[in-house]
Amino acid sequence: MNILSEEKYLLERKRYLRWASTATLIGVASCLLSVSSASAATFEDSLVQKTVQVAPNLEPVIPHPRQEEEVLEKLTSLEARIGKKPNILFFIMDVVGWGDPGVYGGGAMVGAPTPIMDLLAREGLQLTSTYSQPTSSPTRATILTGRLPMRHGILRPTTNNEKGGLEGEITLPQILSEAGYVTQAVGKWHIGENLESQPHHVGFDDFYGFLSVSDFYTEWRDPNFNPDIVNSPERTEMVRNFAFEKNWVHAKKGGDLERIAEVDIPTCSILDEKWADYSVEFIKKMATSEKPFFLYHCTRGAHFDNYPNPQFKGKSPGKYPYKDVIIELDYILGRLVKTLEETGQLENTLIFITSDNGSEMEAWPDSAYSPFRGAKGSTWEGGMRVPGIVYWKGMIQPGRVSDGLFDLADLFNTSLTLAGVKDKMPTDRYIDGIDQTSFILPNEGQSNRKYIYYWLTKTFSAIRVGEYKYMMAAESDDDRDNYLQGGFSGETMNYSYCKVFNLYLDPKETHNFFIRKVIYTDVFLEPVKQHLSTFKKYPPKNVLN
Amino acid sequence: MNILSEEKYLLERKRYLRWASTATLIGVASCLLSVSSASAATFEDSLVQKTVQVAPNLEPVIPHPRQEEEVLEKLTSLEARIGKKPNILFFIMDVVGWGDPGVYGGGAMVGAPTPIMDLLAREGLQLTSTYSQPTSSPTRATILTGRLPMRHGILRPTTNNEKGGLEGEITLPQILSEAGYVTQAVGKWHIGENLESQPHHVGFDDFYGFLSVSDFYTEWRDPNFNPDIVNSPERTEMVRNFAFEKNWVHAKKGGDLERIAEVDIPTCSILDEKWADYSVEFIKKMATSEKPFFLYHCTRGAHFDNYPNPQFKGKSPGKYPYKDVIIELDYILGRLVKTLEETGQLENTLIFITSDNGSEMEAWPDSAYSPFRGAKGSTWEGGMRVPGIVYWKGMIQPGRVSDGLFDLADLFNTSLTLAGVKDKMPTDRYIDGIDQTSFILPNEGQSNRKYIYYWLTKTFSAIRVGEYKYMMAAESDDDRDNYLQGGFSGETMNYSYCKVFNLYLDPKETHNFFIRKVIYTDVFLEPVKQHLSTFKKYPPKNVLN
Repeated sequence: MNILSEEKYLLERKRYLRWASTATLIGVASCLLSVSSASAATFEDSLVQKTVQVAPNLEPVIPHPRQEEEVLEKLTSLEARIGKKPNILFFIMDVVGWGDPGVYGGGAMVGAPTPIMDLLAREGLQLTSTYSQPTSSPTRATILTGRLPMRHGILRPTTNNEKGGLEGEITLPQILSEAGYVTQAVGKWHIGENLESQPHHVGFDDFYGFLSVSDFYTEWRDPNFNPDIVNSPERTEMVRNFAFEKNWVHAKKGGDLERIAEVDIPTCSILDEKWADYSVEFIKKMATSEKPFFLYHCTRGAHFDNYPNPQFKGKSPGKYPYKDVIIELDYILGRLVKTLEETGQLENTLIFITSDNGSEMEAWPDSAYSPFRGAKGSTWEGGMRVPGIVYWKGMIQPGRVSDGLFDLADLFNTSLTLAGVKDKMPTDRYIDGIDQTSFILPNEGQSNRKYIYYWLTKTFSAIRVGEYKYMMAAESDDDRDNYLQGGFSGETMNYSYCKVFNLYLDPKETHNFFIRKVIYTDVFLEPVKQHLSTFKKYPPKNVLN
Repeated sequence: MNILSEEKYLLERKRYLRWASTATLIGVASCLLSVSSASAATFEDSLVQKTVQVAPNLEPVIPHPRQEEEVLEKLTSLEARIGKKPNILFFIMDVVGWGDPGVYGGGAMVGAPTPIMDLLAREGLQLTSTYSQPTSSPTRATILTGRLPMRHGILRPTTNNEKGGLEGEITLPQILSEAGYVTQAVGKWHIGENLESQPHHVGFDDFYGFLSVSDFYTEWRDPNFNPDIVNSPERTEMVRNFAFEKNWVHAKKGGDLERIAEVDIPTCSILDEKWADYSVEFIKKMATSEKPFFLYHCTRGAHFDNYPNPQFKGKSPGKYPYKDVIIELDYILGRLVKTLEETGQLENTLIFITSDNGSEMEAWPDSAYSPFRGAKGSTWEGGMRVPGIVYWKGMIQPGRVSDGLFDLADLFNTSLTLAGVKDKMPTDRYIDGIDQTSFILPNEGQSNRKYIYYWLTKTFSAIRVGEYKYMMAAESDDDRDNYLQGGFSGETMNYSYCKVFNLYLDPKETHNFFIRKVIYTDVFLEPVKQHLSTFKKYPPKNVLN
């Protein structure tokens, strides 16, 4: 037996890591960080980190003073070079699954390669634990307000022309607009159709898209889904008279809606193309502007029912509509990035790519893919865990992958910091987002977020701390209650005890680990109590009941 | 409405693809092929391809004459430059899941980053549909014989010192050895302990490893698993007297076993390190050899029960033994690749990285991760779909990802072609493998395999054609039959009708699509009939019953 001494072994390991990090193997700089991140020293265990609360209305954060310094330096130096604040581009896909992009294990495996998303992920920061809300409208309102649904009040998707929505909220485009940004919303809105909630009334300079959600425009026109409507002129007429905006529209800040075309099925199939054209033109126009921009580009795809653009129909290996639309979305993302590059704006633009919630399995086979349990509408990982790709040429080191927690609410705070208006953070209401610039930008950045809170509409469902998820209530995913594992038909199950999942050992949430982790109870329950207590000082708002 | 004309649109798309493929964006050549592969033209639909049968004892193949030409040219030109045939390195991990490497959606997400596997996958060819057999010994025998378990006769893991194994088989190391290769086996064997099945009696020049499987050496010594043995001197003595080799051994071709050390728990934890040391020395030694080599490196990890090397214990973010061992395996792979590079052999070595079967969920939490249904022992995707990474510097274009079918049996035929001894293919027995050199090496290579056959020991279970899987029998994964979704305790379910899964739309096999795909019946059943008919001419062999 001739075991290397620990010292000798560590030396050899160090030599190896140095070799790997110089990447002589292939000449790819991106292996550097990922290899060094495999050494234990660089992992921060967020479960044991202490948090600090900097203001009573702000979510506590894990402090990282050195990261903060690095990010300040990076942003200051960029601004000195470019002469203005950075642009912000959110590319928000609809009902696309965590697993759909190739870098998340999908792509070719599921019949829809995503070379552009994969490229941006590999050359930027791939987040493996990004969380949305369980459904679309709540997520979108959370991104634009930095607040959880129980605070902004949109607890479920908005339907028809109902009241409520963003009324009374302070929005990201509003603050950015006041900070000198040109603010542009393109594509799906779905955060309220009432006047006070429309994009050009909540801070956007310009809006080009539709106000509702894809299926609202097409499902009643499709004989496959609603023959009882399509075959009855009376029912068709009744639906036509429902008070929702049936057109794809354009509007300028504070102005009226300009109707472009009724969204019937053929129009629906080209919307993403037209919206991309609009964003491309916007990006071109902004190249010569002295102002930075915030482009909020929300795709129509791949929300059911997908009617692929004729240019993409049948062009994916999967050949089904969902798959064709995924390759179109990837193409469209490429068009936007290409335009940024060609107009010299790539190095001054943070790009964040995500989806608004997990797969809608009731629409299968027109559905997303994730490896997780559950689906849209639920607080299982399959309902709330979404892709999170952050790309910023020159500002984010290629090859980073992190399991650090990121809530889409964090986009609000992060954007304020990028725009240099942290001091414009609302003080009269609770903000659930966290500034994550110091997670995203420094080469060794760690997440500043310790907790993810899972809300199932008004029911507090679960908390994630580190790799652990402590679950007190959930949507049933029993097939008898809930056709094909997801969607809106499950009943809420309240656990008499609880479920504890270790998401590293059990990402599919099938092994309740409670009995072995009882010792952690306070690690889970103290922050739950703390979180729920914030609603005493800042009472919940339920706009939509 | 101002819809681009089809012509204009296609032109713009072409321009975009050209832009993406020149990769000016980031300077990464790897985006080239993956982007071009997103355009429809390069996808071959294997479901509709015709196959040809070149000999009665050979599995039919999808012919690709242009690929064949390209591969011939590539291999000829390499040999002219290097002056010998290429080296072959199989890196076979134990019970590691499809989902474990980062590029398959695991890595950081499951608490065990795999930077080296990810790097080799990104800079080589990542196969998303590589299939093993449902259990370990059958897979290993299939790799070394090119034959399915029903032919080589090892239908389940070998235990103790039972007879059978590779007796009477023509093995890959035997043919390569006769073709002038130096053949080296390192690590786990587990294809029979009887003399005639031992590695140095079936073609390997040298063997350094153990003959059985990790748990056989350690489980009865561990008070956590077997207190009834550990606490009883009589039972311990009885087990000690079972006739299996308890040592880690060394042997030279045709020679006797040389015992190195008894594999107790502390020794078990350093085996992978010692085996890697041996392979590193072997690779160094071969640098000056006139002969090419075949290195068959089979790791101990991450088979339950994992007792991590002290250097890695607690060093993964996941902190559990399985996770620590995964990062050690990644490190070990890096050591081998580094040695190949430093000794100037990287460009002359094909490296194939895989696992022997899906996760063993009965051992949870000491278990692998895959997004799929089922586990080791079953013919669900979770039992048989494994990582498949092919790296060959200068011979495989970086950035390739393919869902083309690959059976680990194909490693047999592929290796014969690499060694220039296709003519040494056995003619007296059926060979289930397919030569995949022309899939692996050409830049636009497509798989030559049309079908995957799923056998559940002696029961024919399913066939895969394109993205479809037609299932006639399966192992129950009901928790009541089969504790925690996997392993050996399920009962075989025979379907009165069948299940059809579309693995692009439903990789988790939860939506039986039969009723919508009845039209495809012949696409599935004709090849099943054809496959089963080969057993008439070449009767099955059941060595282990």
